[in-house]
Amino acid sequence: MSIGLFDSGIGGLTVMKQIIREFPNKSIVYFGDTLRVPYGNKSEQIVKKFSIQISKFLLKQDIEMLIIACNTATSYALKSLAEILPIPVIGVINPGAMAAKNITKNKKIGVIGTKGTINSKAYEKSLKALDNSIEVFQKACPLFVPLVEENLINDEITFLVTKKYLEEFKSFGIDTLILGCTHYPIIKNVISKVLGENVNIIDSAIETAKVAKSILKNTNDNKKFYKFFVTDYTEYFLEFTSKILNLDINNIDIQKVSLED
Amino acid sequence: MSIGLFDSGIGGLTVMKQIIREFPNKSIVYFGDTLRVPYGNKSEQIVKKFSIQISKFLLKQDIEMLIIACNTATSYALKSLAEILPIPVIGVINPGAMAAKNITKNKKIGVIGTKGTINSKAYEKSLKALDNSIEVFQKACPLFVPLVEENLINDEITFLVTKKYLEEFKSFGIDTLILGCTHYPIIKNVISKVLGENVNIIDSAIETAKVAKSILKNTNDNKKFYKFFVTDYTEYFLEFTSKILNLDINNIDIQKVSLED
Repeated sequence: MSIGLFDSGIGGLTVMKQIIREFPNKSIVYFGDTLRVPYGNKSEQIVKKFSIQISKFLLKQDIEMLIIACNTATSYALKSLAEILPIPVIGVINPGAMAAKNITKNKKIGVIGTKGTINSKAYEKSLKALDNSIEVFQKACPLFVPLVEENLINDEITFLVTKKYLEEFKSFGIDTLILGCTHYPIIKNVISKVLGENVNIIDSAIETAKVAKSILKNTNDNKKFYKFFVTDYTEYFLEFTSKILNLDINNIDIQKVSLED
Repeated sequence: MSIGLFDSGIGGLTVMKQIIREFPNKSIVYFGDTLRVPYGNKSEQIVKKFSIQISKFLLKQDIEMLIIACNTATSYALKSLAEILPIPVIGVINPGAMAAKNITKNKKIGVIGTKGTINSKAYEKSLKALDNSIEVFQKACPLFVPLVEENLINDEITFLVTKKYLEEFKSFGIDTLILGCTHYPIIKNVISKVLGENVNIIDSAIETAKVAKSILKNTNDNKKFYKFFVTDYTEYFLEFTSKILNLDINNIDIQKVSLED
């Protein structure tokens, strides 16, 4: 049995990286909906439909747990998937919200993500459900994903964009920021530099992996494997996977599949 | 009868704007494949399939000419569509290449676009077919689209990104640059500032509209209309359409349609 993860594209690989840390001996099946990426600017109805298609596909791969490694899909589809599927389903939102609630002292929490995630107010709802007195400050940061994908991680441009997006959080006086997009951990250092050391940065990927660990036993898998399914094949997916997970590019087991009705 | 345009999303609206200038009395049907945007990072096979689906849909809307207002779709699907369809089909690549060939003096031409357009080498092939002695310098600029969509058009960040992308063209000594992506005309001023006044900037949208004008008569349409079809509905499409085309947001005739098999 393996752990299944899915994302609209490559961002969820940062979650897979943390899952590997917590479960070094487990097999993992990753699904990247690279044909239909990004989900961040699609409607709720469509993202829900795609998420159900993918989950049904992954169930056939004999997974024992499903991790929605995509903030947009979590905010739109977690509820439906948890109802439909016969295995545990974890999204990336509640673990991040819970960690933020536990660490904040002044109860002022910032959340950054794609337009889809921010518009859905999923983190805000999750935080308010945990503690209604928490103040939530949200901001969509659509340039972060292409900056990461252009590998401008240590460039002045990324620093300026980060300042532009996050300067207002300083005046709000937040003491905790949730990285509500799976690409953002890659520029965590820049974000931390802009906000200063006193702001706690919550990496949803790390928190999600911890929750997965608390539910699933770390059974030894004698024939451990990593499998990747994509809906459109590009070299870029392989390169990114190799870089994030530190895998030999020639040994990545990848298959293109079609999910159309 | 009307003119049909399609694009993967909103970028083709800059082409529609130029078509309206050339044909102020013509009806226009615009199709934005907003559900499956962007095409720039998808495979040739998939983009061709989507383009054929859309063209068949537009044919049923009684169009008399089809304009592929998308560089990626033009480079992958123009040939197939021109063979299949019983009406004239114009892409955005040949008009831009022809204008660049006519204006260059030193025969050193730069081309910028999405990864898909640049990897396809469509402009290079088109320019070389016109004059094999032309030297072509290509560069993918993936950050330009999100910068435009973030409305950072006059921001220092866009200036720095433009410098980063285009500085090398200066050392190549190009005297002409083709804007090979329909979003780029919106930041034409910044591009021109970075490259200097001596470099001619070719706006494919303007050149495409001129070619359309040379083929089609500007017949008067007593009941002129603009119709918009999208595959996923978002407020952003309406806002952008209203801004680019200077239309009242409440009077935009938009319909969501499904193209799935």
